[in-house]
Amino acid sequence: MRQKITLREVGLRDGLQIHPTFMPTAAKLAWIAAEAGSGISEIEVTSYVPPKLIPQFADAQPVTEGALRIAGLMVTALIPNLRGAQRGIELGVHKLNYVMSVSDTHNMKNVRRSSAESVTDFRDIVTLVRSQPGHAQPLVCGGLSTALGCSYEGRIAVSQVVKYAVQLIEAGAQELIVADTVGYADPAQVRAVFKAVLAEVGSVPVAAHFHDTRGLGLANVCAALDCGITRFDASLAGLGGCPFAPGASGNVVMEDLCFMLDSMGYDTGVDIDQLVAVRALVSAALPDMSLQGAIARAGLPQGYRVAAQRLPV
Amino acid sequence: MRQKITLREVGLRDGLQIHPTFMPTAAKLAWIAAEAGSGISEIEVTSYVPPKLIPQFADAQPVTEGALRIAGLMVTALIPNLRGAQRGIELGVHKLNYVMSVSDTHNMKNVRRSSAESVTDFRDIVTLVRSQPGHAQPLVCGGLSTALGCSYEGRIAVSQVVKYAVQLIEAGAQELIVADTVGYADPAQVRAVFKAVLAEVGSVPVAAHFHDTRGLGLANVCAALDCGITRFDASLAGLGGCPFAPGASGNVVMEDLCFMLDSMGYDTGVDIDQLVAVRALVSAALPDMSLQGAIARAGLPQGYRVAAQRLPV
Repeated sequence: MRQKITLREVGLRDGLQIHPTFMPTAAKLAWIAAEAGSGISEIEVTSYVPPKLIPQFADAQPVTEGALRIAGLMVTALIPNLRGAQRGIELGVHKLNYVMSVSDTHNMKNVRRSSAESVTDFRDIVTLVRSQPGHAQPLVCGGLSTALGCSYEGRIAVSQVVKYAVQLIEAGAQELIVADTVGYADPAQVRAVFKAVLAEVGSVPVAAHFHDTRGLGLANVCAALDCGITRFDASLAGLGGCPFAPGASGNVVMEDLCFMLDSMGYDTGVDIDQLVAVRALVSAALPDMSLQGAIARAGLPQGYRVAAQRLPV
Repeated sequence: MRQKITLREVGLRDGLQIHPTFMPTAAKLAWIAAEAGSGISEIEVTSYVPPKLIPQFADAQPVTEGALRIAGLMVTALIPNLRGAQRGIELGVHKLNYVMSVSDTHNMKNVRRSSAESVTDFRDIVTLVRSQPGHAQPLVCGGLSTALGCSYEGRIAVSQVVKYAVQLIEAGAQELIVADTVGYADPAQVRAVFKAVLAEVGSVPVAAHFHDTRGLGLANVCAALDCGITRFDASLAGLGGCPFAPGASGNVVMEDLCFMLDSMGYDTGVDIDQLVAVRALVSAALPDMSLQGAIARAGLPQGYRVAAQRLPV
């Protein structure tokens, strides 16, 4: 039996948030529907931030409502604070991805709060969610950004990551995301950090979020797989590069990640050809977007379907 | 103590052989010298094939002779046959990299011989080398191309790879190269193939040669590292893409590989900044060459030097 892996699309949030051109709501919904149709079961569709801050997410409401109509899709959204959580609850999103930085400096620059204060904010969010009727309670996920390095502080101590992981779980997180926000991680570090976190979090699932900024995204995924991680964020065509580094890779490329896992014998539940086809839709809607990805360029290996079926993990 | 890794530059052979523009001999030698200066200790500088077949290697003699003047550098060259071995011996190259395909179809298309016949040819090459006076005997290395997949035959049986690995060693190979010639490999397959080969080859060192065609190059390196492999081929700026797929990645990018290993705590002996600087030299000599690579684009992480020293494997 193949090990199941959950792939989570974050391009609509992590990819679009830095893109200067507004992607029409209909195009976002077509993207979400097409990717869900290819077998991606969880999509972070937007971010509940003030439109003044990030105009790209001014359509958070219709995007959430549209995504919720897709049967079987886990619809998630990023929230920076309590107000975001309130909006998510009102809209009926399935999961709230709260994000705080393990790096105090990064957190301060991002949300003008210390990391400790962000944990307190998270407690308030959980309290708000728990005060709703059961059917109206979204899942609450705690994201630890800069967990594998920070552009201000450099490498982050493993103990620091573990500390905040434990605090978020004690506060009520039902899932964690450990994120290499700036693409600093290497596979040895990934093993060290994920092993340490997994040893402390009990049964709470941990997802990995890697950026391919320095080319190590898929190698880092393999290191996390070795630790037992089975949930991975990625973005179609690797969307999510830094706006100040043209051509720089962003998140791990979803199509390549999917190919790697499928080829290794894991069960992603995704049809790669259908997934690759979604690129055309994104590129038609945002022609100025630079799309990354090796599988889209090189194609699947000769005899691939048969070979992949021959080698279950 | 850090584990030593030997990185071997193959861009001058694998990268240039498909490039239509002749790179001036002086530029090749400047490239070799600069890369050796950065700490790369082994470079495949050319291929001993008839210039009519590949005009790029018409200067194999001056390139070999020039490279041999660089103190401390292991100078290697590819040979397709006995005539190539003869030239290598005459020129005094340090190591002959003989290549045959594990895929019979690929071998037939490439050298109009079955894989079994190519093993016989290798025996003759070893006999020729052993007939030289001791000081004039280059090392003889047996390369197994298409070992992780073939564009004609698809996936190759592990037993087939092991069979030819054993035959080359019985014939006298002092080193093996197991190559993913067309970029089909995934990390699970790499583990399966390298474990099986290593179990049979005794003390003969095995090197890994990966292409990044489908984005899995560095993940595959990690899988081979896990098996105990410590010798890796790569090419500066990932040179070596397919001439029929513009922008396609070629070999694993040397700078990114070097960064990954260094960051993981391995001892590559290479100065990354000096290595990255060599790109300018190649690109000045061949402006139409497309250079790949994430580290050259994104730069090293903040505080990287200190961090890398903190995390030995």
